[in-house]
Amino acid sequence: MITRDQYEFLCKTTEDYLGRAGIVLTGAERGQIEVADFGLGEVESQGLEIITYVNTARCCAKELVMLPMQTCPEHLHPPVDGEPGKEETFRCRWGTVYLYVDGPPTQSPSGVKPVGSEQHYKVAHEVVLHPGDQHTIFPGTAHWFQAGPEGAVVSEFSTRSRDESDTFTDPRIMRAPEVV
Amino acid sequence: MITRDQYEFLCKTTEDYLGRAGIVLTGAERGQIEVADFGLGEVESQGLEIITYVNTARCCAKELVMLPMQTCPEHLHPPVDGEPGKEETFRCRWGTVYLYVDGPPTQSPSGVKPVGSEQHYKVAHEVVLHPGDQHTIFPGTAHWFQAGPEGAVVSEFSTRSRDESDTFTDPRIMRAPEVV
Repeated sequence: MITRDQYEFLCKTTEDYLGRAGIVLTGAERGQIEVADFGLGEVESQGLEIITYVNTARCCAKELVMLPMQTCPEHLHPPVDGEPGKEETFRCRWGTVYLYVDGPPTQSPSGVKPVGSEQHYKVAHEVVLHPGDQHTIFPGTAHWFQAGPEGAVVSEFSTRSRDESDTFTDPRIMRAPEVV
Repeated sequence: MITRDQYEFLCKTTEDYLGRAGIVLTGAERGQIEVADFGLGEVESQGLEIITYVNTARCCAKELVMLPMQTCPEHLHPPVDGEPGKEETFRCRWGTVYLYVDGPPTQSPSGVKPVGSEQHYKVAHEVVLHPGDQHTIFPGTAHWFQAGPEGAVVSEFSTRSRDESDTFTDPRIMRAPEVV
């Protein structure tokens, strides 16, 4: 749950960061920014701002905007209705992103697990994305990601997005947003 | 066929336009810019500069860069190997794009068919894309597009790209590039 004031602050920040990345939204898109707090009630720590450009049965593209150190919780994309899970490529456009995926744990990683939720962040192989860097995540790969100290803007190119089907490591998470 | 000098000029222009759009490439990507002249030998009139970020069996993302009035010839994406044809969304990031698709012809369109190739441009329903505007083209829809007077940078979000299977209206076109 987030408050209307939080929502408005986060939308304003989203527009500000997109501007720094040179990304233009239409007026309609500015009115449809999604703020995901994952039902955890600490959106500035665990949350994500999302602009969905297109999401059809076959193809999806979004911009993801993140506050400094804001974290998208660990999850994976399972098969749905007999189709393979979502495949997604994250491309950093502005700022820095620390992405964690299945694989050998990175010693001395740059990111910090959100305080109080550490046990729900298990994968620890770090991929650092600076502007122009990208990484593709194939279905069934657990992953989480965190913005660096400036925040981040990340383009996501993917197959169909069905966020409501994502499997989160943290059992408290509800993907559908609630704004009060 | 394009010359090495043309290729180098077009790569430099591509990097310049991407810079104006705030888009960052890695060093490796700068070395892999595709210049498509469609075998017509008039790349500055009918041609396209392309950076492919990702192209898997399911998903593709590119940046398309266009000189002022440069035109991507009319084509459509047919089914391949029993899969529906490519679905693509064009999102204008910088400059202006005049996109033409099947539909009622637009009176007094902004674009101009390339001189000497007019008969190979048949669809005439105009969609003008300014930064932030986008349009989705479903399989089997003939389309062509032209940059406005400043040139353009366009993000393409799509299903798998198999350019060699595209069906062009102009029978002279060869999609595979030749650099001399």
